[in-house]
Amino acid sequence: MIAVFDDAAIVAHALAFEAALARAQAAEGVIGADEARAIGDACTAIVIDAGVLADEAALAGTLAIPLVARLRAMLEGHAAAALHRGATSQDVADTVMMAQLRDGTALLLADADRLVGALAVLAERYARTPAIGRTLLQDALPITFGLRIAQWRSGIADAADRLRTEVIRNAALQLGGAAGTRGGHDGRGGAVARRMAADLRLAEAEPWHARRGGVCAIGAAAAILIGTCGKMARDVALLAQNGVGEAREPVIAGRGGSSAMAHKRNPTGCQVALSAAMRAPGLVAGLLAGLPAEEERGLGGWQAEAPIMADLFLLASGAVEAMAIVAEGLDVDEAEIARNLAAAGPSRDVGESAAIAAALLTSNTKG
Amino acid sequence: MIAVFDDAAIVAHALAFEAALARAQAAEGVIGADEARAIGDACTAIVIDAGVLADEAALAGTLAIPLVARLRAMLEGHAAAALHRGATSQDVADTVMMAQLRDGTALLLADADRLVGALAVLAERYARTPAIGRTLLQDALPITFGLRIAQWRSGIADAADRLRTEVIRNAALQLGGAAGTRGGHDGRGGAVARRMAADLRLAEAEPWHARRGGVCAIGAAAAILIGTCGKMARDVALLAQNGVGEAREPVIAGRGGSSAMAHKRNPTGCQVALSAAMRAPGLVAGLLAGLPAEEERGLGGWQAEAPIMADLFLLASGAVEAMAIVAEGLDVDEAEIARNLAAAGPSRDVGESAAIAAALLTSNTKG
Amino acid sequence: MIAVFDDAAIVAHALAFEAALARAQAAEGVIGADEARAIGDACTAIVIDAGVLADEAALAGTLAIPLVARLRAMLEGHAAAALHRGATSQDVADTVMMAQLRDGTALLLADADRLVGALAVLAERYARTPAIGRTLLQDALPITFGLRIAQWRSGIADAADRLRTEVIRNAALQLGGAAGTRGGHDGRGGAVARRMAADLRLAEAEPWHARRGGVCAIGAAAAILIGTCGKMARDVALLAQNGVGEAREPVIAGRGGSSAMAHKRNPTGCQVALSAAMRAPGLVAGLLAGLPAEEERGLGGWQAEAPIMADLFLLASGAVEAMAIVAEGLDVDEAEIARNLAAAGPSRDVGESAAIAAALLTSNTKG
Amino acid sequence: MIAVFDDAAIVAHALAFEAALARAQAAEGVIGADEARAIGDACTAIVIDAGVLADEAALAGTLAIPLVARLRAMLEGHAAAALHRGATSQDVADTVMMAQLRDGTALLLADADRLVGALAVLAERYARTPAIGRTLLQDALPITFGLRIAQWRSGIADAADRLRTEVIRNAALQLGGAAGTRGGHDGRGGAVARRMAADLRLAEAEPWHARRGGVCAIGAAAAILIGTCGKMARDVALLAQNGVGEAREPVIAGRGGSSAMAHKRNPTGCQVALSAAMRAPGLVAGLLAGLPAEEERGLGGWQAEAPIMADLFLLASGAVEAMAIVAEGLDVDEAEIARNLAAAGPSRDVGESAAIAAALLTSNTKG
Repeated sequence: MIAVFDDAAIVAHALAFEAALARAQAAEGVIGADEARAIGDACTAIVIDAGVLADEAALAGTLAIPLVARLRAMLEGHAAAALHRGATSQDVADTVMMAQLRDGTALLLADADRLVGALAVLAERYARTPAIGRTLLQDALPITFGLRIAQWRSGIADAADRLRTEVIRNAALQLGGAAGTRGGHDGRGGAVARRMAADLRLAEAEPWHARRGGVCAIGAAAAILIGTCGKMARDVALLAQNGVGEAREPVIAGRGGSSAMAHKRNPTGCQVALSAAMRAPGLVAGLLAGLPAEEERGLGGWQAEAPIMADLFLLASGAVEAMAIVAEGLDVDEAEIARNLAAAGPSRDVGESAAIAAALLTSNTKG
Repeated sequence: MIAVFDDAAIVAHALAFEAALARAQAAEGVIGADEARAIGDACTAIVIDAGVLADEAALAGTLAIPLVARLRAMLEGHAAAALHRGATSQDVADTVMMAQLRDGTALLLADADRLVGALAVLAERYARTPAIGRTLLQDALPITFGLRIAQWRSGIADAADRLRTEVIRNAALQLGGAAGTRGGHDGRGGAVARRMAADLRLAEAEPWHARRGGVCAIGAAAAILIGTCGKMARDVALLAQNGVGEAREPVIAGRGGSSAMAHKRNPTGCQVALSAAMRAPGLVAGLLAGLPAEEERGLGGWQAEAPIMADLFLLASGAVEAMAIVAEGLDVDEAEIARNLAAAGPSRDVGESAAIAAALLTSNTKG
Repeated sequence: MIAVFDDAAIVAHALAFEAALARAQAAEGVIGADEARAIGDACTAIVIDAGVLADEAALAGTLAIPLVARLRAMLEGHAAAALHRGATSQDVADTVMMAQLRDGTALLLADADRLVGALAVLAERYARTPAIGRTLLQDALPITFGLRIAQWRSGIADAADRLRTEVIRNAALQLGGAAGTRGGHDGRGGAVARRMAADLRLAEAEPWHARRGGVCAIGAAAAILIGTCGKMARDVALLAQNGVGEAREPVIAGRGGSSAMAHKRNPTGCQVALSAAMRAPGLVAGLLAGLPAEEERGLGGWQAEAPIMADLFLLASGAVEAMAIVAEGLDVDEAEIARNLAAAGPSRDVGESAAIAAALLTSNTKG
Repeated sequence: MIAVFDDAAIVAHALAFEAALARAQAAEGVIGADEARAIGDACTAIVIDAGVLADEAALAGTLAIPLVARLRAMLEGHAAAALHRGATSQDVADTVMMAQLRDGTALLLADADRLVGALAVLAERYARTPAIGRTLLQDALPITFGLRIAQWRSGIADAADRLRTEVIRNAALQLGGAAGTRGGHDGRGGAVARRMAADLRLAEAEPWHARRGGVCAIGAAAAILIGTCGKMARDVALLAQNGVGEAREPVIAGRGGSSAMAHKRNPTGCQVALSAAMRAPGLVAGLLAGLPAEEERGLGGWQAEAPIMADLFLLASGAVEAMAIVAEGLDVDEAEIARNLAAAGPSRDVGESAAIAAALLTSNTKG
């Protein structure tokens, strides 16, 4: 996930934007095929010191200016003039961010599948294991241990579904030009945009420079996914308490030790997910704050999104992966489960736990 | 919208829950038809001082306890025993909240339709009016004034769509009982829940006491809707500046005056929407913070949701309605638009503004 | 606390503002003594339907306009002209809010003193009671039970100190007039403001219409106080778990029951504080979002503050009071403490727990 | 500022912690002078690949474990046993963070002084320049241009003061050991901590592992400073609009250009500050969310703080520096100021603008 959001990825997506723009414009007759080829070659051949470029971008307020300047210096006459035609810095920045979110989501969903699968196995394994259910942190009535796990799984699977849906819908190409009118394409801007979207594997959209609801929706979906991992983490950490002892994280070499207490086994995976779940809500607030963007392209709001999104996706990746490892190796102590259940009273009536868990395992679409 | 979230509505939905539960249990043979009838009659006949009940609920930590006690006092023997059978306080609280969100969303969507419709009219009216586009708060290149408005409309319409979708999906009945196992329904809990959901016009779901992703998604969708109204409000306020003068809020008797400057015409509708857009992000953060709920029913998280949701929906209602009034009476000054355009330079090339605006007006599903 | 923030309090503070303004202007010779007396009499005599006024204020975008109109209708000639002279709506609104925050803080600090005092008693009582300390939700090494409580107390006391300091410093009169220049006072605006501040028991300040750092600092301090109550609540709820059993909330009639499980004793006071601690962070984010206020008096930001502040102070009040009740009646089980300690191992070495606890009890000013 | 928060700084502070701990323990007779010297030498001699260490720390859940292991491998017998005695991972992590916040604050305050100084010069220069004041984004009444600037300065200076105060008070050494009892120092833990605090130039405090109000207060103060820069940035961006034209950012080579419009001069410094002001509120929410830390040392909350704090300080640094550059070169257009004032009406009465501005320039302590 770090590679999805690092400087090299940003530069690669930005170069892909410029090359795809030229190809699409050539296909639509806006620029010549030779120019497009020269631009594409320059995008391939260019060697960039990402650190130096990042410094220049910070000064310029945008990556596109120094990057386009470098490319233009590699090109001659018509090709130099054809480069970046009809595009603006934000077209590049937004398209880069959306390509990153698409790639990051693919990684996240792969890890989420792994996590959801591992939880399904656990939910089946403990489908008939009675355990005391706890509400408001107090012993309540019996459940099955598998129902608890099926609830984790369902929350995470639903959240992953929402993220997938929002990304498919909103991870769109940006191509509007300076004022969002698609000027500079000889009236072929819509067709150019369609070609580019297909080329870059992004959704099509009318220019959305100052219309950021889709970005916010992706960010909120990522935060919900993080929070559902935090829910599982909270439970595992509570179950791992010495006075409870029903489940513990697996032992991983180098993980969960204490610098002061050699015997201690800390819920370090849970810590990763819970820490992410504390940071994510505020990050979403930062995205939402940018919605009232000024006029055709705003000042300060959209520029805040990319680092927030990188943080959200890195936190999500850490949380989902940590919980996948925990799920795959969860150390369940059936004797302690039975002991705690007995301590809570004689009842073994788990109601319809099994049916509910089964329903939760077959569907991601409820609740 | 205030009526949707006031104490009387809460009590009415809670009584509807208890009556529907009894009806459904009677239909499934869990309780007798006479008991169900007596419970239903009590729910109809009961007279409640909402203020006194609210105080008792605050002390008890939940509304259901004092409400059920009152109903039980009205019932005899079997009916008293049958009341609230298999249900827990959170079943009532969550079902009440979801009924409120469904009702609140209906109101919001009606206002949003009005707003979106008014913006479509404006976008058509100014479809060919060239205006200077502004980016980073600087004059950039020409657009059509209608494109700017079509962008507002599209952002708001998309956000309204997302809210509708999330509410349809997630505004679900809660029926799980004390530990979320649907005990106490003689094994008919699933069927009882299906009947109740249909009866109360809510989605079906397995118990979701500690699985709050759907709540968060509804809240995030409402906040995005608020933010898209804030975007329109930001633009109208900027356009209404004395040095710009392209559009102003309509004059409404009693609105927008100044206690110190009688001549002044303040953008008060924009103020409502912008103020809402500043509060909404933090409210969503408060919802997301509750995702890591403890075990079968958490402590503190879900209890924070109902007041946050009421705030979000009241803010959304205020913002959407304020912008509807602004859109319906927007005072556009074409002479100023032309003057500002001329001041920005000779170009009148609005690119593909008309085509983009037209596409934005026919679809809510992009971006 | 509800009375501090209700509509009646707002109207009373607004009337006090207008009367104090007239008195101060008369003392400085800006208006006549007769006019000031007439204005003061009108402020005393006026009978207001707070609900109707609130509706008009919502429409006008500010309370001052309809309120001043009502007062003016009660006055004749010179007095009518003298009313509200040199003041603007935001002067009234900001002064009202600050008076509320001062009053609300007084209540909060009284409850905090009660809480801090009760915790000091508990910390002394258990100063030598060894208990197992827990870190990352795992048993770690022995502490004294009193040290744990002294930590709660110190966090809360520090937070109360910060709130007191920020309110003393920042709960200031607002008097700037329409553009924050103190026009309309015949050059005596500074002196008028000093008199008014003394009269209304608020700090003096130059006009701060668009300088909201002090408001944010008060809000952040309130949120930190809420969070420190949440810390105590989290611990009590964890200690009250059936598998731990070291402490429980006191039994309060009507509190903490379960609608489904009659035997259950829920940590309802902890729920209040934890729920507040989940909402407070987002509310502070809402305040901070308004800092970049536009020009001399902004649009949307400061208007969002008053409802946020009311929420924060109501939540703080609920949290502090709930924890005071818990502290005053905390049900500590020394046998369980001893049992859990023994289960964790043979060590009884509590290090310097007693000295640390003693230091924490004598000082609020560290950490 | 990047250097204050990078991996190398973290390692250097962590090594300084271990060396200072050994020195202080030797001075108090807890360990031998030879052991302390050997530990100090190891801390000096050690060569660390920060990237590899960071990976191991991420796995372990804490930096201290792999770092202490490396140091221990360099030591023999008694010195190896004496290393890290009485300390826990969080002691190191918290002390490192506080050293970073102290260093970061020093940089921030230096930049803030520069900014505040430049604004004072501007406020004096335009102390008698009448300008139209604007409220709710509408022309209101005349002010002096210098008053506007004095307000910016006062807001920023107050915020810098608050940050300084909170850092002096709360940037404290952490030394508590595994359970916060200062075990393992032979009863000399308090004295060891005092020596270490002096040695490392940090405040003294009783162990504060789960008492995080001070951290939150520093973070809130940093966010308020960011927001006050955002206020200045918002105003400069509004003043720089083509229809206003009263002030513009200075021209900086490589900054503020447009990739699509060569003539454009974007307010890029304002963009930096406004973007920071949108991100900061949510970051503070993330800090506050961690206050209800579990028991003696919590799970997930404090671990979220360090990256949030690094973000906040980097954003603050960027915002303050950007505004310092803007202030030092602000391009004020007195002709446009006069033109806009004339357009707003005949009044030139600026009230007590000069006196207010003068008072704001002499004091940071009001409002």
